[in-house]
Amino acid sequence: MGLTKLNPVEKVINEIYPYFSSITVTTVRFNEATSRYSAQRVVAVEDNPPVPKSVLDGFAVNSEDVFGASEYSPIELEIGKEWKPGVAVYVNTGDPLPQGTDTVIPIEAVKVVGNKVLVFKQYPPGNAVAKIGEDLRKGETIIDKGVLIRPWHVAALASQGIIEVDVIDPKIAVAATGDEIVEPWEGNGVRNSTAWLVASFFRERIGSVPSYHGILRDDEEAIKNFVEVALDKYDIVITTGGSSVGKRDISVKVMEKLADKWIHGVALTPGRPLGIGVRDGKLMVSLSGYPVAALSQLEVVVWPIIKKAHELKEPPRPKVRAKLKRRLPVTPNMLHLYRVVVCSREGELWVEPLRLTGSGILSSLIKSNGIVVAGVRGETGYDAGDEIEVELIGDIVPCK
Amino acid sequence: MGLTKLNPVEKVINEIYPYFSSITVTTVRFNEATSRYSAQRVVAVEDNPPVPKSVLDGFAVNSEDVFGASEYSPIELEIGKEWKPGVAVYVNTGDPLPQGTDTVIPIEAVKVVGNKVLVFKQYPPGNAVAKIGEDLRKGETIIDKGVLIRPWHVAALASQGIIEVDVIDPKIAVAATGDEIVEPWEGNGVRNSTAWLVASFFRERIGSVPSYHGILRDDEEAIKNFVEVALDKYDIVITTGGSSVGKRDISVKVMEKLADKWIHGVALTPGRPLGIGVRDGKLMVSLSGYPVAALSQLEVVVWPIIKKAHELKEPPRPKVRAKLKRRLPVTPNMLHLYRVVVCSREGELWVEPLRLTGSGILSSLIKSNGIVVAGVRGETGYDAGDEIEVELIGDIVPCK
Repeated sequence: MGLTKLNPVEKVINEIYPYFSSITVTTVRFNEATSRYSAQRVVAVEDNPPVPKSVLDGFAVNSEDVFGASEYSPIELEIGKEWKPGVAVYVNTGDPLPQGTDTVIPIEAVKVVGNKVLVFKQYPPGNAVAKIGEDLRKGETIIDKGVLIRPWHVAALASQGIIEVDVIDPKIAVAATGDEIVEPWEGNGVRNSTAWLVASFFRERIGSVPSYHGILRDDEEAIKNFVEVALDKYDIVITTGGSSVGKRDISVKVMEKLADKWIHGVALTPGRPLGIGVRDGKLMVSLSGYPVAALSQLEVVVWPIIKKAHELKEPPRPKVRAKLKRRLPVTPNMLHLYRVVVCSREGELWVEPLRLTGSGILSSLIKSNGIVVAGVRGETGYDAGDEIEVELIGDIVPCK
Repeated sequence: MGLTKLNPVEKVINEIYPYFSSITVTTVRFNEATSRYSAQRVVAVEDNPPVPKSVLDGFAVNSEDVFGASEYSPIELEIGKEWKPGVAVYVNTGDPLPQGTDTVIPIEAVKVVGNKVLVFKQYPPGNAVAKIGEDLRKGETIIDKGVLIRPWHVAALASQGIIEVDVIDPKIAVAATGDEIVEPWEGNGVRNSTAWLVASFFRERIGSVPSYHGILRDDEEAIKNFVEVALDKYDIVITTGGSSVGKRDISVKVMEKLADKWIHGVALTPGRPLGIGVRDGKLMVSLSGYPVAALSQLEVVVWPIIKKAHELKEPPRPKVRAKLKRRLPVTPNMLHLYRVVVCSREGELWVEPLRLTGSGILSSLIKSNGIVVAGVRGETGYDAGDEIEVELIGDIVPCK
């Protein structure tokens, strides 16, 4: 019993991702693209600004007209609506430079007397002027392929008049399995939390809301039927539960039979019982039924496969280095995902691994403010006092 | 001309936030709560697990029945469906312990012979058993007030059968102002990008999609009408443009007249021309019309006011310390938001401030991978080689 062959995480990622090609791309309006991953490189379609503009409130003049001006011999110009030699035109910030002018004198630097303006120093061409294309040049990249679209990207699309953009929008089908499972709103039994965790993970991470297909009983036909139908319509098909090697572990067997390429068992704890593979470019995943194990599998294996296959550039996560309060054991050749509490004392950061280690123990995530992935470099453990890297998922607390 | 009085950022935040009381709370289904801020403390409504459960596949027994078992004198038990003395009951991972049993023997550790099972060592009570409430105790906090709801919170709600949760869902009205402004999908003129940046900011940050009210002309009646009507229906009313002190800066004047409490001008660059205040507990904001200035105002003033007023616990942002490649000047008593590029060379991180400093220069955000807020502690500048803190908004690149 138990999974006899555990595949290193890196191997699983590298063997599966090249085959995961199916991905839905959706065209959305620019303002709905926030927090989605761009499916294309978007370039500027015009120079911005398209014409020279004033960057402050003042008078647009021709620099030759104020050449030689000084405190002691100011030059007087007429204030006009249009430029001709000897005329200064009032401009607000952002206004295009009037024809014939090439520089802007700040309003604070001049003296206005009736219909005239006195200039007390000379200004070179281009003073307080935003040049054509100073912000964006036509053809320049605004959003690279695979970039997570942030508010400034939306603003850049708007400024260029680009009102649609293609985003990565994987169609994901999720179903729970297990005779003992009930829905959260139902009566007696073990409440389904893992499939909902999976749905929430994708909603948060990629903005695609998975399609939830309910709870399947431990019945080979029912599970096979779900997976086959889902493979037709979705890019990613996920079940929770039934991923190990017992009699009731049906999902993993069903998917294995359907797969072109399949791996079962990963050197990850919690999260060993993972089945993952592809059929016709679509990703099939048999996750653990236990929430912490499933999250670990999503974070460390599934999400990296999606990112690598579709070249998504995820923004950096918050990380700190902190000293271990107690020894952290690492099983050789095994990746460990530890839930920890990071605390601060006299400017030093300390990290305390939570002792709740069950793969179903949700409170270990709720009570933690950090996650440590250990064993990546073949470590066999860390001693108290060793410094390790922690991904922060909550604020650092004072040490007790 | 120009804003004569600039208020320190901390002062603006602390004087405004106590008056911003109006906030809409929406009840959503547990699975739609992802990436929203909880408006309430949510506690466990029952112990989890509610009964003792097996944490692995094996035989549930009464520990007294296997007392004294050893390699050389194994104890034989009958396999049954229900427990009585001398009987072992097969359980799958997650199954409740059968009445009368108190410990679980892993399937790998026994020998099954027909209808009997041989046990080769003694097991204390509680072996491989998850105790009642081991994960969550009734009354224990699952989600604190103001916490950003992550996938494991959703799973915890599901596991507790809690199917609704109240989230912070501020109703936000946004309008652009300016005679020269057109929408991105329209013809000639300066395209509105700032109001869309604002909408995107809130969509990303708080999951509330602002209601967009279009472009208002530089007309006092039109702007006053918008603000008054919006104050009735929304928690936050925002205009972009018209926030400085020129003739066309109407938004700020209109809002000031309506406000119970109002501050104009903040010691922040880019972003000085900010008007912010409250009326009847509602927040009114006159943002700069320039995208980078508006983003700076949102990040450094508006968002902190929202967070403080409603006790939102934002997760940490990714930050690194890096050495300056060149001098970074800081105007005394002024907060500066610099867009920078962080690069890595031989394990050392370096930071290069972008030279594009215009408050409208979107490309300075698109090209940066970090943001530096400088001047918080009264610094007057940093020299090349000084180490400063940078918030990462993109991946660190290799130094050229």
